[in-house]
Amino acid sequence: MRSLLLVAHGSRRRESNEEVRRLTLGIEERAGESFDLVNCAFLELAQPTIGEGIDAAVAKGASEIIVLPYFLAAGTHVVNDIPEIVEGRRRMYPAVRIQVTPHMGAAPALPDLLLGMVPGADR
Amino acid sequence: MRSLLLVAHGSRRRESNEEVRRLTLGIEERAGESFDLVNCAFLELAQPTIGEGIDAAVAKGASEIIVLPYFLAAGTHVVNDIPEIVEGRRRMYPAVRIQVTPHMGAAPALPDLLLGMVPGADR
Repeated sequence: MRSLLLVAHGSRRRESNEEVRRLTLGIEERAGESFDLVNCAFLELAQPTIGEGIDAAVAKGASEIIVLPYFLAAGTHVVNDIPEIVEGRRRMYPAVRIQVTPHMGAAPALPDLLLGMVPGADR
Repeated sequence: MRSLLLVAHGSRRRESNEEVRRLTLGIEERAGESFDLVNCAFLELAQPTIGEGIDAAVAKGASEIIVLPYFLAAGTHVVNDIPEIVEGRRRMYPAVRIQVTPHMGAAPALPDLLLGMVPGADR
């Protein structure tokens, strides 16, 4: 059973966290057969935490979890904090394969996505 | 003359600002004939500021400037700060058309972009 966990920073603004939750629903709709579970989790300031998100996926039977950092830049959260939390969960659940993808800001398709938001751009 | 200005928050980490500058080069490469100028600017903590970025585009002859907020969420920076700065520049340059697009986190193609980062996802 394959699980995708979109990981965001988390905000004091409830609306920003809701925006992440809506995006997660959008991913779930588009994921087709790729994932049995699609959820989000937050590094801080919102629930569930990343550890709790992984725990919940494992409790639902996930054998593989893909952690996708929804971050613009490879700052200390992406480089240190998220890998550290994931490493702790790998030790807790040695039978579960937990992978971390590059952060969103490193997506090769990002220039085209941004140009797609511009009225009158070629793509 | 048409100018695209990618507007990011700006970071104390030089590498994060460099990541935005690299992304801007990637957009420039992909923009084709859509824009004569593609640049980035920062709300704070890095140069050029948004106002300076608009000034530079106008100085180079831009008659239309598209401001694209590279932000995950519609927080106060997106809702208040950026529109306020842009409005001030509109008053300075009444002959220049300055538009602001929705922020990056609202891109309709975002779910597909994120799924595209995941090994083994359908898209």
